[in-house]
Amino acid sequence: MTEVKAKTKGIKRRTGNVSIGDFSLESGIVLQDVHLAYEQVGPDGAPVVLVCHALTGNQFAAGTNDHPGWWAGLIGAGKSIDTNKFQVITFNVLGGCNGSTGPLSKNPRTGTLYRNEFPHVTVRDMVRAQERALKCLGIRDLKAVIGGSLGGMQVLEWGLCFPSQMEILFVLAATPFLSDYGIAFNRIGIEVIEKDPGFKGGHYGDSREVKGFEIARMTGMVTYRSADLFADRFTRSQCRKEENGKPLYEVESYLKYQGEKITERFDVNSYLTLLYAMNDHDIGRSRGGWKNALNQFQADMIGVGYKGDLIYPPDFMKEFIEKVPSGKFYKVDTKYGHDGFLVEFEKWSHIIQHHLNQ
Amino acid sequence: MTEVKAKTKGIKRRTGNVSIGDFSLESGIVLQDVHLAYEQVGPDGAPVVLVCHALTGNQFAAGTNDHPGWWAGLIGAGKSIDTNKFQVITFNVLGGCNGSTGPLSKNPRTGTLYRNEFPHVTVRDMVRAQERALKCLGIRDLKAVIGGSLGGMQVLEWGLCFPSQMEILFVLAATPFLSDYGIAFNRIGIEVIEKDPGFKGGHYGDSREVKGFEIARMTGMVTYRSADLFADRFTRSQCRKEENGKPLYEVESYLKYQGEKITERFDVNSYLTLLYAMNDHDIGRSRGGWKNALNQFQADMIGVGYKGDLIYPPDFMKEFIEKVPSGKFYKVDTKYGHDGFLVEFEKWSHIIQHHLNQ
Repeated sequence: MTEVKAKTKGIKRRTGNVSIGDFSLESGIVLQDVHLAYEQVGPDGAPVVLVCHALTGNQFAAGTNDHPGWWAGLIGAGKSIDTNKFQVITFNVLGGCNGSTGPLSKNPRTGTLYRNEFPHVTVRDMVRAQERALKCLGIRDLKAVIGGSLGGMQVLEWGLCFPSQMEILFVLAATPFLSDYGIAFNRIGIEVIEKDPGFKGGHYGDSREVKGFEIARMTGMVTYRSADLFADRFTRSQCRKEENGKPLYEVESYLKYQGEKITERFDVNSYLTLLYAMNDHDIGRSRGGWKNALNQFQADMIGVGYKGDLIYPPDFMKEFIEKVPSGKFYKVDTKYGHDGFLVEFEKWSHIIQHHLNQ
Repeated sequence: MTEVKAKTKGIKRRTGNVSIGDFSLESGIVLQDVHLAYEQVGPDGAPVVLVCHALTGNQFAAGTNDHPGWWAGLIGAGKSIDTNKFQVITFNVLGGCNGSTGPLSKNPRTGTLYRNEFPHVTVRDMVRAQERALKCLGIRDLKAVIGGSLGGMQVLEWGLCFPSQMEILFVLAATPFLSDYGIAFNRIGIEVIEKDPGFKGGHYGDSREVKGFEIARMTGMVTYRSADLFADRFTRSQCRKEENGKPLYEVESYLKYQGEKITERFDVNSYLTLLYAMNDHDIGRSRGGWKNALNQFQADMIGVGYKGDLIYPPDFMKEFIEKVPSGKFYKVDTKYGHDGFLVEFEKWSHIIQHHLNQ
């Protein structure tokens, strides 16, 4: 276990890497010497809130003052998830590219990087690896598990793989299975990467060489934000005339920028690994279907859906969460759509705070 | 003018190609020796219904018994657009690839194919070329102009470029401008084609060599059909395990098939030309904005919107059509979304029939 300790305004924070040894995947494949990178913030011995991150997220949910995490608006001293009261732990997912075992790791069997030979992992694999890692950190019981999107899928699996280990499940912008529509968008992303000669069958030199990755990200972006938000922000403004006389609009330039940005901070093989894991997400698999699985939750379930979420529609979230015996659903009015769980904390973080402190 | 005449069940049908001579585009560029391919069905001298086709459509709206057109469910003897009563004319759009002047045509100036050097055309250019072609066919006054999607955009421009030349405008699944959200999806399609080395800067040998075109089509498909329809049709069924243990779902296989199919029947440069034309669609350009333009229609306007249309939302269609002095809007309840205007004729063709025969 490697560890870095620091204090930010009196709040204890450590980041590190837990080794969980050899790990059997749902597929039967055994990964050797698996480790998960993590961030842990808050007082020792305090109740633990486990955070699960989304597709291109990482373990730095809280972050530091200088480098605020992606959920710094939610997590911190005096915030809705109060790090004076709770220990907040976030792992980089199995298959990720921020320090946990994934395509960028060395395969102990071969001594070379896994790259595209990293095996198929499922959301259940991610969750079971996290449970093992928590044990290594001396933690078993959780106050809550919380996450949005792919993070919300993990929350659902946490509640079914380890039903008695937490009091509350906070499921944000996620459904019991990925819809065919969601799979369709992921397939476009997978296809544009895998068909790109720069991908070299997964043996690219650097993610920036894979132009298809940029387009895959652009395809994601149109599902993360709503049409209304695009309209408000871009108002069909043109940024410049292209050389051939065809106009280029601000929204196109924005998407291209987002595409370029992702290649600087994320690994392509890891991105594919996580898309495939999302496609495979179905809490009903080997549990008699998703409706049956809903009866197997023991913890309280708080669902939060975001208006205009194209792939994880709030109406369907309401339907399934109200089928969970102890489920309670909130819909957030927003123009952000799916990305609502990453912004406008004033609109919904009080829900988390309320239930955590009840 | 070339012409092929035939009779199907006593209904006169001809297909041909009208030469409209040199033609000035909105950009100021002059295209030499422009021609438009067309289909004309119905009795000579009968009132004319002009049909405008969508992105990958063509002039064969009615077709024949052996080869029914893409709107054969709507157009024909005794059908809602009754070819016993009306002459129905459809042109392949300027910039198209089914016989009209477009990227596959020979540039008279150079003697070689235009390919990617075909200039930027707008929806207004398409409509003005059609008006010229109609004149060549001896037709000026129209009973109605009808079209969906890119066809609906043309209908709107028809009503503004030539406001006194028709009685009724039927606008299906189209809005006064393409939204930023629509531009975003088009940009993904453009990007994946233009970044494909097989595209060769527009100098590919055959559209089937441009793998990016398949993915562009897949990106279109997710906007043409609704999430509900995908869910009903595919139910997360898996078609087979991929070699690397990653599951492949039916919906992915369906999208790939649709991608492959388009490359067999459509030209890539033409597809790009039409995407750029759609991006540029705004009835308000040089008319003081779209709200102002709405007051300039003289014909009756009948709007039909389709539930779940992602890019051309029926709520916005209702809003703008009700601002048109003689506008009337109908919303069709469907799971097809945008593609509603190509299917389930029993749900909405009576609207067309009613207003045509009023």
